[in-house]
Amino acid sequence: MYICRTINDIRQTVWSFRDAGETVGLVTTMGALHAGHMSLVAEAAGVHDRVVATIFVNPTQFGNPKDLETYPRTEADDLAKLEAAGVDAVFIPTVEEMYPDGDETIVETTRLANMLHGMVRPGHFRGVATVVTKLFNIVQADAAYFGEKDYQQLQVIRRMVRDLHLPIHIVGVATVREPDGLAMSSRNTRLTPEDRAAAVCLNHALTDAEAVAAGGGTVEDMAEAIRARINAEPRARLKAVDIAKALSLDPATGPLTGPVGIMISAEFGPEDNAVLLIDQREIAP
Amino acid sequence: MYICRTINDIRQTVWSFRDAGETVGLVTTMGALHAGHMSLVAEAAGVHDRVVATIFVNPTQFGNPKDLETYPRTEADDLAKLEAAGVDAVFIPTVEEMYPDGDETIVETTRLANMLHGMVRPGHFRGVATVVTKLFNIVQADAAYFGEKDYQQLQVIRRMVRDLHLPIHIVGVATVREPDGLAMSSRNTRLTPEDRAAAVCLNHALTDAEAVAAGGGTVEDMAEAIRARINAEPRARLKAVDIAKALSLDPATGPLTGPVGIMISAEFGPEDNAVLLIDQREIAP
Repeated sequence: MYICRTINDIRQTVWSFRDAGETVGLVTTMGALHAGHMSLVAEAAGVHDRVVATIFVNPTQFGNPKDLETYPRTEADDLAKLEAAGVDAVFIPTVEEMYPDGDETIVETTRLANMLHGMVRPGHFRGVATVVTKLFNIVQADAAYFGEKDYQQLQVIRRMVRDLHLPIHIVGVATVREPDGLAMSSRNTRLTPEDRAAAVCLNHALTDAEAVAAGGGTVEDMAEAIRARINAEPRARLKAVDIAKALSLDPATGPLTGPVGIMISAEFGPEDNAVLLIDQREIAP
Repeated sequence: MYICRTINDIRQTVWSFRDAGETVGLVTTMGALHAGHMSLVAEAAGVHDRVVATIFVNPTQFGNPKDLETYPRTEADDLAKLEAAGVDAVFIPTVEEMYPDGDETIVETTRLANMLHGMVRPGHFRGVATVVTKLFNIVQADAAYFGEKDYQQLQVIRRMVRDLHLPIHIVGVATVREPDGLAMSSRNTRLTPEDRAAAVCLNHALTDAEAVAAGGGTVEDMAEAIRARINAEPRARLKAVDIAKALSLDPATGPLTGPVGIMISAEFGPEDNAVLLIDQREIAP
């Protein structure tokens, strides 16, 4: 497995793949790899001759400096997992390599970035769109694989690729869960055992909402069921419940007339060092 | 010469060049081609196996709808000029092709876009950066050629390419002028004969400023000389005089200690249907 720390290195490596007529799949990560990331790698490996992964904790998508500082960094472990999974090359740049001196250029999906989850984390999706554009331009893969867990992020990236005509295919991959149903996340390692046990309330809340929908309930009823379930867990602080039309993320109200995406987020642990978890489910009427 | 009106068409065409191992130079235009554009084509043709030109009057970089509406459109003439110059393929998309339904993604150099000339034309450089990113992603050329006349635009594009790691090389080409010194511009055709004669005051003003600098004058003295020359022309309405450090466009003041870029703009004709002309010169101490 090639380990590339400069843009020049990873480009040379990918060019050597292309010169041999091979296709390239890309998995962008912030490290702290878990089974969710590895499912993206497996998807890519099933389709492409070569898989390139990136590990970069992107400062511009963190609103809270404490969250950036405490984001888990487990490079040796990550590299071992990627190598074992048959990844061909890893790009691990520094912040200076990604954001050159005087960097000032941003990419933003002006509508999607500033609604729903984007309102709770201002600047977050601008940071994501900007760094993903950089990574796409650096690696120049045929396709990139993203988890459906970050539901709004996936819509942002699809929209951006379509609008900017980026020459890459975007593939969404289903959320991987722990045996009790908690969505895999790098942040899960920051939870105390008690918060880890409590965090399953997110998945339960989504299941409650799905039952409400199956029983003919409205979007408002679904949201109410989610709030009730998470508010019943004293360790969880509910941050957002958004139920929106799939793809466009336009507001959904009243009876279910088409597929909707449910996006929820809740915090665990001390206010000044909270762990923010998100989960999602797409439900058709 | 291939004439491509869809993204799919131009991509197939460029891929056919690449498959033959040929390099590709790109010249992006808004049509109404003049000797300035043709000098970009000639530069590209001297370096690359193939030259691709684009003709697209980009709505998002016009602040004034009247300016967009009256922008000269001379497609048949443009195609004849490009073919005569040996251009291999032309991309002429519709607005719908470039800005797909629901388009919302922008690219912006947040500092350079909103200073100097960008303050006079809010949103202009955001529109330029966005459409140029789209065109780069569509054509995927090795290099793109831009006129130095649009001095700030060239800095915006260089900065954007560097920050986003766009895999393309940017080449600046010297301004081409009419025999009397007026910088070539598509907008020149909109001038009345009287305004056309008066418009040479921009170039004279730059020559005055250069003389002031050669005589040891300060940046403020240079600006004053420009204002005096343009204000002496009753047909010209001075819009902006900006003298900034080359490349960074940081403010320049006092005695000349390094190269500066002078950017000036003036309007001609009726207020409600004005023709905005710009000119520039880089001066070293």
